[in-house]
Amino acid sequence: MSLIDVACDLTYQVRTTTVFLFQIEAARTPRQCVISENLSLNPNVTVETFEIGTDGNQLQRVSVEPCTLEVSYRATVELKPGKEDSNDIGESPISQTPPAVLTYLNPSRYSESDLLSRFAFEEFGQLYPGFSRVQAICNWVFDHLDYTPGSTNANTTASDVLLQRTGVCRDYAHLAISLCRGMGIPARYVAGYAVNLQPPDFHGFMEAFLDGKWYLFDPTRLTSVHGLVRIGTGRDAADVSTATITGNTVLTQQIVSATESANNADPVDEDTGASAVSTA
Amino acid sequence: MSLIDVACDLTYQVRTTTVFLFQIEAARTPRQCVISENLSLNPNVTVETFEIGTDGNQLQRVSVEPCTLEVSYRATVELKPGKEDSNDIGESPISQTPPAVLTYLNPSRYSESDLLSRFAFEEFGQLYPGFSRVQAICNWVFDHLDYTPGSTNANTTASDVLLQRTGVCRDYAHLAISLCRGMGIPARYVAGYAVNLQPPDFHGFMEAFLDGKWYLFDPTRLTSVHGLVRIGTGRDAADVSTATITGNTVLTQQIVSATESANNADPVDEDTGASAVSTA
Amino acid sequence: MSLIDVACDLTYQVRTTTVFLFQIEAARTPRQCVISENLSLNPNVTVETFEIGTDGNQLQRVSVEPCTLEVSYRATVELKPGKEDSNDIGESPISQTPPAVLTYLNPSRYSESDLLSRFAFEEFGQLYPGFSRVQAICNWVFDHLDYTPGSTNANTTASDVLLQRTGVCRDYAHLAISLCRGMGIPARYVAGYAVNLQPPDFHGFMEAFLDGKWYLFDPTRLTSVHGLVRIGTGRDAADVSTATITGNTVLTQQIVSATESANNADPVDEDTGASAVSTA
Amino acid sequence: MSLIDVACDLTYQVRTTTVFLFQIEAARTPRQCVISENLSLNPNVTVETFEIGTDGNQLQRVSVEPCTLEVSYRATVELKPGKEDSNDIGESPISQTPPAVLTYLNPSRYSESDLLSRFAFEEFGQLYPGFSRVQAICNWVFDHLDYTPGSTNANTTASDVLLQRTGVCRDYAHLAISLCRGMGIPARYVAGYAVNLQPPDFHGFMEAFLDGKWYLFDPTRLTSVHGLVRIGTGRDAADVSTATITGNTVLTQQIVSATESANNADPVDEDTGASAVSTA
Repeated sequence: MSLIDVACDLTYQVRTTTVFLFQIEAARTPRQCVISENLSLNPNVTVETFEIGTDGNQLQRVSVEPCTLEVSYRATVELKPGKEDSNDIGESPISQTPPAVLTYLNPSRYSESDLLSRFAFEEFGQLYPGFSRVQAICNWVFDHLDYTPGSTNANTTASDVLLQRTGVCRDYAHLAISLCRGMGIPARYVAGYAVNLQPPDFHGFMEAFLDGKWYLFDPTRLTSVHGLVRIGTGRDAADVSTATITGNTVLTQQIVSATESANNADPVDEDTGASAVSTA
Repeated sequence: MSLIDVACDLTYQVRTTTVFLFQIEAARTPRQCVISENLSLNPNVTVETFEIGTDGNQLQRVSVEPCTLEVSYRATVELKPGKEDSNDIGESPISQTPPAVLTYLNPSRYSESDLLSRFAFEEFGQLYPGFSRVQAICNWVFDHLDYTPGSTNANTTASDVLLQRTGVCRDYAHLAISLCRGMGIPARYVAGYAVNLQPPDFHGFMEAFLDGKWYLFDPTRLTSVHGLVRIGTGRDAADVSTATITGNTVLTQQIVSATESANNADPVDEDTGASAVSTA
Repeated sequence: MSLIDVACDLTYQVRTTTVFLFQIEAARTPRQCVISENLSLNPNVTVETFEIGTDGNQLQRVSVEPCTLEVSYRATVELKPGKEDSNDIGESPISQTPPAVLTYLNPSRYSESDLLSRFAFEEFGQLYPGFSRVQAICNWVFDHLDYTPGSTNANTTASDVLLQRTGVCRDYAHLAISLCRGMGIPARYVAGYAVNLQPPDFHGFMEAFLDGKWYLFDPTRLTSVHGLVRIGTGRDAADVSTATITGNTVLTQQIVSATESANNADPVDEDTGASAVSTA
Repeated sequence: MSLIDVACDLTYQVRTTTVFLFQIEAARTPRQCVISENLSLNPNVTVETFEIGTDGNQLQRVSVEPCTLEVSYRATVELKPGKEDSNDIGESPISQTPPAVLTYLNPSRYSESDLLSRFAFEEFGQLYPGFSRVQAICNWVFDHLDYTPGSTNANTTASDVLLQRTGVCRDYAHLAISLCRGMGIPARYVAGYAVNLQPPDFHGFMEAFLDGKWYLFDPTRLTSVHGLVRIGTGRDAADVSTATITGNTVLTQQIVSATESANNADPVDEDTGASAVSTA
């Protein structure tokens, strides 16, 4: 168990009546408990909060007249990940994959696993199935991409990234997800906060479904998976945008942080890959 | 209310142990009642049936050793669509869209609405919001595409179709879906059986979310929306494949039909567009 | 006849031994006479000058050791375009197109005319053939794109632009070229200097082959075709890069200008479209 | 020196007045001498023959009224390739590349070398420059693609092929060309006849520019480069279509062959890669 303090402050110049859909609150899951949290908006507009999907994603809807909008979120979150010996974790044959997980085998907007399946089998088909194979996929992504802010945009897909060999965290995750799905391993995108991420920002990483559980991976190696706080889970980044904005509005400031809580009894481990982190 | 008989017969040459995920059974929804149905497989292997998602999609999982596999499905389905005056149907502002519907605003594998949003606003932004605008989108798709079997494949997306101006039913649906989403109208893909479809085959069409309900559209104009029997609902065709096959297997025969039942009291209307069909 | 003064000043930080291929000098063509010119480099390295292709393109090759490289070009160019009544100009049937022109019917890297042919015929197939049809294509491009610096990059193609509906001068030209080729009208890319372009920069525009001659068009409407000074001609922008750089080098300053010469006897006309400008 | 007999017979159903641009005749080059040839058309329409470009490409233009058109070509061609020890062949630095060759460094429609440059450097950047590096690129293409007729179409590019890992001869050539260009090695497409190609067909292969000469490579390994008869040279397949057709016409038969001539004094060698074949 670890206690993590997360925070984000967003400022928008709202020029026309605008509807925001925010996904910035920590998700509620069996492995992630929100000990305390506070969301404040200035001006103090009405906030509707929904849980969407079945993975604990929280969504806030706000309608705002022209103004300067400040959004501030603070939370303390307790992480209770399963930690297992990564050597013991195999793959789940499709004949035993739970129905709710099957959707994470389908190609999606940014993870066109149908296009990359042959590539995946060629590169990783001979490897021993299980956690180590997903690790090998993430290692391949890490080794073959250059982390280059500005080299991709909101339209960039896993195929683009595989060709151009550059990207940022969301691109790393999309490519690893595509390669997993392409081999028949369910995989999904996770947006979140990450302890000690430099420079501080929201983070994108991934999960693969192995032996009946979801396991966390960060192909960028920028963080330890032991310190990841989930905001939301989706097929890819299309499902977990920080803010979906309908209206003429500009983001003018964004400050994000995630740190171990002062009274954290169980410091966040480094990610050695020997200890696998399961989340559901 | 209409009674429709649907049937499909599929034959596969199974060369290695193969897992099939079938989506061929009629969905269970408040507006579609399965009066009777029978699924038989020869050889008589064990069939697991799941309901996946929240829209009544039925999925069968079967594991088969090398053989000739014959799958036969028969059902009688009662359609109880809402029928409303299409002139009365407006759009749902995003501030009032139900949370479960928001996912159908996101871009997906074959409906990259993010890429087509500017195009959509340019073409349809000046039209009066509501049912008639979605109809205008479907009309545009019908007018600008040529229905050309073989002109697209399993990788073809709405962007491809918008450029090449040819496609089949799934492509028509993907393009119409993308244009709707691009304008902020939730839209989703429906796979199904269609009365009087020529040549007989599975069909792909779409739904748009308007004034709090889902309404059916078939941009190919090959069928009447009053005679559409839903198999499954998804973001796009990736979610409702007839058969997802893991193994070395070839489809050697496929026969599909949908006809009005002999004791159908309420014949299927022609689709004039004046009477809108709501499904949920 | 018009006299135009053109100038460009480029500064590079050269960090490793670097080979530059420059295309910044005014082309030599029957319709464009270089009255005087001067190219100076500081440090004063050896410059090889080649004429490449058959359209008067000048190319400079320079090999430079690490330094700050300043490139300065000044020229006075006399334009002697043909000016004709645009109403009299038809299209050249492929049965009469000169062999050297046929290559400009082929698709190229940024002008994938094969993908856009059906679109082109659908939009422009009913129009009367000739100059006015190419003008209609350029008008369509102008009307349907937003000129948005930063919205495209060096990989952006005509297909991308047709979907996303934004671009800069090279994108406008690529799309107009593709649509012309898609209809069987030879079209090519021209890089050059443009009188009164705001903000001052190199410019990209296009030519279409009609009735046995090449005619200039600028679908951005940012300039008058009467004041365009050709640097080079190619299938698309891939052929006429300002600088192709092999080495670790960064452009730190670029100043470009084109103005009517003080002793210009024949002021540059506005581009009304009534008077067509032929260049070869 | 080898003597090769080549032949092709094409039959078209011409439904409307149609203009054909054929590229089926053997090219005239210093290394390829056409000893005898005959082109006959039935009905006996007028044929215009042009040499296009500077590499000996022959182009025939024919205008045909509705009919059944039979095109028959026979030629005996003498190949006089240079044969050199492949170990002695280095790369040409861009500072010494002849100006006419520079165009073959540019990206083209089907060989988007700009997109694949980073990939190329990552895979092949550490290899010793020269013939062996181009051979390594061709080996990589051979090893990572499956030769699968029908898996690609006229729109398929090198990027597509690199992702999907299947293709036919033109796709193999496009990918190898792109990877060469991406590393700064000029490369171009060659269409031709190939001795002993099974099944008999036109063939597509490639050349790379090394140490001041063009060298032949066939990444499909379906043929010996010693038995390749050039029809035409281009940036990619867009430049050397067998037939460019303007009109409503269908190809109903195509028979192609290339065999060693009965009085061939110098049998075609196997392609061991030890002996490099230069063509210009």
